[in-house]
Amino acid sequence: MAHEHGELTVVGKPLPRRDALEKVTGKAQYPTDLELPGMLYAKILRSPYAHAKILSIDTSKAEAYPGVEAVITFKDIPDRRYGYGLNDQPMLARGKVRYVGEPVAAVAARDLDTAEEALELIDVKYEELPAVYDVEEAFKPDCPVVIHEDYANYELTFFPPAKMDVKRPNVANHFIIRRGDVEEGFKEADYVLEGKFRTPRQQHVPMEPHAAMARIENDGSVTVWASSQQPYLLINQISTLLDIPPSKIRVIVPYLGGGFGNKTQLKAEGICIALAQKTGKPVKCVFTREEVNCGTTSRGGTVSRIKMGVKKDGKVVAMECEILYSSGAYSGDAFVYSTRGPFQAAGTYKIPNLKLDSYLVYVNEPVSGAFRGFGNPELNWGIEIMMNRAADMIGMDRAKFRKINLLREGDEGGFGEIMHSLGTEECLEKTLRELSWEEELRKKEGIWRKGKGIAVGNKYSIAPSASYATVKVHVDGTIEVRISAIEIGQGSTTILAQIAAEYFGLPLEKIKMVVADTAVTPFDFGTVSSRVTYHVGNAILKACEGLKRQICELAARKMDVKPEDLDVKGRKIFSKHDPSKKIGIEDLFSPTLGMGHIGKYAEVGGELIQSATFFSKMGKMDPATNQLLNKHEKSCSFWIEIANGAIVDVDTETGEVKVRKFVNACDVGRAINPMLVEGQLDGGSVMGIGLGLWEEMIFKDGRIMNSNFIDYKLPRASDLPAVKDTVSIIVETPHREGPYGAKGVGEATMICAPAAIADAIHDATGVWITELPMTSEKLYYLLHKKA
Amino acid sequence: MAHEHGELTVVGKPLPRRDALEKVTGKAQYPTDLELPGMLYAKILRSPYAHAKILSIDTSKAEAYPGVEAVITFKDIPDRRYGYGLNDQPMLARGKVRYVGEPVAAVAARDLDTAEEALELIDVKYEELPAVYDVEEAFKPDCPVVIHEDYANYELTFFPPAKMDVKRPNVANHFIIRRGDVEEGFKEADYVLEGKFRTPRQQHVPMEPHAAMARIENDGSVTVWASSQQPYLLINQISTLLDIPPSKIRVIVPYLGGGFGNKTQLKAEGICIALAQKTGKPVKCVFTREEVNCGTTSRGGTVSRIKMGVKKDGKVVAMECEILYSSGAYSGDAFVYSTRGPFQAAGTYKIPNLKLDSYLVYVNEPVSGAFRGFGNPELNWGIEIMMNRAADMIGMDRAKFRKINLLREGDEGGFGEIMHSLGTEECLEKTLRELSWEEELRKKEGIWRKGKGIAVGNKYSIAPSASYATVKVHVDGTIEVRISAIEIGQGSTTILAQIAAEYFGLPLEKIKMVVADTAVTPFDFGTVSSRVTYHVGNAILKACEGLKRQICELAARKMDVKPEDLDVKGRKIFSKHDPSKKIGIEDLFSPTLGMGHIGKYAEVGGELIQSATFFSKMGKMDPATNQLLNKHEKSCSFWIEIANGAIVDVDTETGEVKVRKFVNACDVGRAINPMLVEGQLDGGSVMGIGLGLWEEMIFKDGRIMNSNFIDYKLPRASDLPAVKDTVSIIVETPHREGPYGAKGVGEATMICAPAAIADAIHDATGVWITELPMTSEKLYYLLHKKA
Repeated sequence: MAHEHGELTVVGKPLPRRDALEKVTGKAQYPTDLELPGMLYAKILRSPYAHAKILSIDTSKAEAYPGVEAVITFKDIPDRRYGYGLNDQPMLARGKVRYVGEPVAAVAARDLDTAEEALELIDVKYEELPAVYDVEEAFKPDCPVVIHEDYANYELTFFPPAKMDVKRPNVANHFIIRRGDVEEGFKEADYVLEGKFRTPRQQHVPMEPHAAMARIENDGSVTVWASSQQPYLLINQISTLLDIPPSKIRVIVPYLGGGFGNKTQLKAEGICIALAQKTGKPVKCVFTREEVNCGTTSRGGTVSRIKMGVKKDGKVVAMECEILYSSGAYSGDAFVYSTRGPFQAAGTYKIPNLKLDSYLVYVNEPVSGAFRGFGNPELNWGIEIMMNRAADMIGMDRAKFRKINLLREGDEGGFGEIMHSLGTEECLEKTLRELSWEEELRKKEGIWRKGKGIAVGNKYSIAPSASYATVKVHVDGTIEVRISAIEIGQGSTTILAQIAAEYFGLPLEKIKMVVADTAVTPFDFGTVSSRVTYHVGNAILKACEGLKRQICELAARKMDVKPEDLDVKGRKIFSKHDPSKKIGIEDLFSPTLGMGHIGKYAEVGGELIQSATFFSKMGKMDPATNQLLNKHEKSCSFWIEIANGAIVDVDTETGEVKVRKFVNACDVGRAINPMLVEGQLDGGSVMGIGLGLWEEMIFKDGRIMNSNFIDYKLPRASDLPAVKDTVSIIVETPHREGPYGAKGVGEATMICAPAAIADAIHDATGVWITELPMTSEKLYYLLHKKA
Repeated sequence: MAHEHGELTVVGKPLPRRDALEKVTGKAQYPTDLELPGMLYAKILRSPYAHAKILSIDTSKAEAYPGVEAVITFKDIPDRRYGYGLNDQPMLARGKVRYVGEPVAAVAARDLDTAEEALELIDVKYEELPAVYDVEEAFKPDCPVVIHEDYANYELTFFPPAKMDVKRPNVANHFIIRRGDVEEGFKEADYVLEGKFRTPRQQHVPMEPHAAMARIENDGSVTVWASSQQPYLLINQISTLLDIPPSKIRVIVPYLGGGFGNKTQLKAEGICIALAQKTGKPVKCVFTREEVNCGTTSRGGTVSRIKMGVKKDGKVVAMECEILYSSGAYSGDAFVYSTRGPFQAAGTYKIPNLKLDSYLVYVNEPVSGAFRGFGNPELNWGIEIMMNRAADMIGMDRAKFRKINLLREGDEGGFGEIMHSLGTEECLEKTLRELSWEEELRKKEGIWRKGKGIAVGNKYSIAPSASYATVKVHVDGTIEVRISAIEIGQGSTTILAQIAAEYFGLPLEKIKMVVADTAVTPFDFGTVSSRVTYHVGNAILKACEGLKRQICELAARKMDVKPEDLDVKGRKIFSKHDPSKKIGIEDLFSPTLGMGHIGKYAEVGGELIQSATFFSKMGKMDPATNQLLNKHEKSCSFWIEIANGAIVDVDTETGEVKVRKFVNACDVGRAINPMLVEGQLDGGSVMGIGLGLWEEMIFKDGRIMNSNFIDYKLPRASDLPAVKDTVSIIVETPHREGPYGAKGVGEATMICAPAAIADAIHDATGVWITELPMTSEKLYYLLHKKA
């Protein structure tokens, strides 16, 4: 949506968060804080095996245990499966278990201790089956372990439908890009290089674990309080699993204590509902940290192979990628990210010949799923190392090499679409300046070496997707905005209020935000894919435009002028020709009999209320190539471009790496609230550095070995560069359809960090690490092997 | 709104109430049932004096009492007053108290006992003032007691503004009708007769006492659960009293255990809010039955004088009425009912010369307020006795005499408007048939005498007033209706669901009703004045029409036909020309990426949702006469016509009256649900008989003497005619603007009962009682005085 906007007074300002006071005073309510009178506490019995047949479940002892009000197993619920594209996952294991941590039964008891004790009284008999954990093993056509014998009967709900003609027993999804002719490209190239890359499982580690509470209403409908980034998706999954019509499911999402993609799919909500239905009482379930780690999703590991053909003049002429995404035991939202992670290969460079195959592969591990970046950091990791290796090979400066190949405004991207709002070069330039790219670093000798590295990348935002907004004028001139965007810590409620405030020329406190209660707030695709500012912001603007029309029509009648001659600013409606001719918003409301000046209705229109949808369409693609049939259509809603830079010190004796400076530059279109955008960039840097250097979930026989924060190493402040050396740079290339030009930011900020650090390590030491995380152990091994 | 409707399948059917199961199983939640974690209990300290100065209030002992969390007096709240037309009432007494039971202070404590004990620790010093209780005394220009010295400074919020040029110190309001010239009319008459009549205070006695609960949200906004028939009025009053912007007040109304007008104005809500603000905790207050009697409103007593001129041929040529409504100590909604009770004189008979003066008079008694009939039974009582006396005087059958004078379709009513949908004659005819009017009754001699009586009347429904409705299609084809009409026991939620179901040709269970939460449900004038079926029903139909347009436009695009060629029935959209060409409602929704067949949005339109207002305008009137300037405009939304008949046995020795048969016939336009309309008629008969024979709140020096159900005599089943002899007759004269022709019913049903019984007593004994209730004592006195 295009917006003519003069001087902005609210948008673009680093206004304080609306939720700041509530949060710092501890008053804010999170799902874990919720209480209802008479509520029961639920605990989940999880599989101890990575792959096993369930022979029998005996719940009688648990049911008889004092304080236990209900026990459920698969027998208590419909035989349904859920997913996000492919319905392959049961809510409670049925027939067999496929990972350590899979829910098998659940208990509702009067207190938490009783619920925990009762779990031990449930007698499940298993017959262990051979399992497969390695994604390359599982990918083999002749893999002896078949995790989903029934795959062919699962319901595929993905839109547009995925293409699945792969004859490998554990492949859950296959996505392709075919552009040009890579074989011809490689022939044309002066150099062809190949690489193989690995990325690990990473946990989101939201500060707040997952919680859910369910209550059955008197009409049989269900109210669920959920840790959900996608309340309307949750309605879908609950409805699918428990056979409850969507109109009878209400999802309320309070503040969330972080998500990063970990709170997209159904977690404990369905179990709470089934237990509430059985007991007639509200049921609450809060995951332990161990359950967050083994019983929710994480970033799945990948193995990728990349082949690149370059010419001496610096042009990349061909790229072939194969990436295996580890799905864990079910497809979860990995189904979609195995089709969207590959977008990384399509949105940064102008590569005429591109061939990509992305596979989602089942293994006997916990389910993987959405995680900031949604499959893109994994592919960026390999591509950017290849870019650096290629630059070295032709003896060209790595930055210059990238600039030759960057997609620019009007170019065709990897899906054949005309690209727009690409600030990659500006991001890169600003990053280089921060790194003093031209200056040689000292300390290229001795034990401690220094290096500089860069990486660029992109994050698409998903299409098709829709957001809906309702705006209402209150009699006191307050504008109420009803949306289902989730305040997950990113500040969306503040940013979206700024958009409405800017539109009406009101101070922020005159905007009332009503968020995320599906009984009140309208459809939204969800707080995913860095899409909220753009989609929900646009829906709000469209609704505001309609509301302004209503206001002007009503005012025109009172003022005896034409509606088109009027404008609204602050709480005044005035003639554009003669601004002294004006009335107040409150004058639109007439006193109702006996209700005085406040209990009023807006004349004629009743309430002044307006709704609107914003819908991002995905263009039709040729299924044989995934090239757009019309290059003026879009493969995604918008592209966010990013450049990262790192300066590292490496101890060549021990392999220890210290990031001394980190630069994160991102083209966000327009920063509606620069303070909050900087927060995203700072946070993304930390998360990206963590993925680069330390974070990895370690499994043995399908069992997580480091489910605590001593063994799972999250970056601490002392591990990171100083605050002054963690540089976040906002680049603004306004998007013609964005609200006030804004695109998104959240996910892009962690795409390139590992590759930039790898480049800096190589610069310091001359070795390439191709497996994440780049631990001291790995570097030590490589350095000493090299020596 | 006119509706072409063929065969009706849902409307007109006696379908079971939607809330039946929930209520009979005890699951339904009423305000008294509500609980919140950590809530406090409030109690109110009330004035023991009818009129006194407050010299001092010392709350220190109560505040120090263990378990007490806050005490409030007038010092803790803004110096504001509220009302319903005239803001004369403080929330907590300020300066003086004006009735026994007036709130002076309130306590919030951890339990109810502590709160009650703390009340006794509040030390209030009073200086008693002379008081006035009798409405005629208070009405005198030289009444020495002035209840509101500050009257002139009160804010008048009534619309249209009332005319107040009366020089009497305790008159709160004055309403007039001037039509023709009564002096000329009396000259023209063959007979002129006069009468003076009294009616008592009557309590509504809702089964559930009043309750309120308030919680302050983190943003300082307020959520109130209220026993309210008018949630949007409550927002107004809370905002006025406590200086909270309306956009920060949310009112939720659960099921109410009856109201009958007693739950219109603010009761404990403001006190709960002020205590919640002071303590930061949720506060709940439940009234005792004694508090319902002295601390809420009741039907105010009246004294009226009526002068009637009739001609020998049976024509009433002039009527002059003066009625004094006792307001109690504040105007409450008596302010409006003193302007709307007089409508009784305007809506039944064609009287060319009419003069009416209605006064609202302050006395030192609890506040009077809305009560089923809203001031009309009081005036009907006098007018109908006068009609019978006039018929006797000219020796004409009472029924025939009425028929000569009844307003008929197209006649001009008392405000000069063209009347429509008047089934009075049909109501009367059907009543006469039930009474076998032509047949002489035996037992005109001896101790036990028999008599037959009739009365007719009307109830207007208030204008101006507005209702707003929002309707939404769910992906499962369910239609959701959001309205702020209150399910107060009358069955409105069922009736309004029938209207939406009929419109879309759906079974009732496919309509989801969302009611009375101002955060979700839109503006409504309230559940008062028998207005809900007509106003809210019309708003729903208007919204449904818009929704159908949206559906057909969307479907037309998919089906490649014109929108106007399509119709919607059930869950199908089909071509009117070729009904085999059809799609399902669910086909309007497209799957969203990964959300499958349920988590969908409607294409283009986003959500399928539509809102509409229905607004009843009141025509402009000449303020000097209250005659409509345009006789095609309206004085009210619609008129409901009513006829009652009674057969009584009277014990002439003791004055005991037994109603043997009671007939209640009412023209409701169209009975959307005849079972529920009959329920209204049956209930109205009982309430009307109670007012006629027994019910009266007895005061001594402003203090209620019969605040219990032994001394305040409500009719029991054994006091009433047998069920088979309590005859409810539905008459249907469709209203051209009513939803499916419907008007209203609730209040009309109790207008005429006292007069019909009085007529029957006169028929049996030859004496006229002119004071309600017609107790044995009064009749004994009259019979023996006569003898």
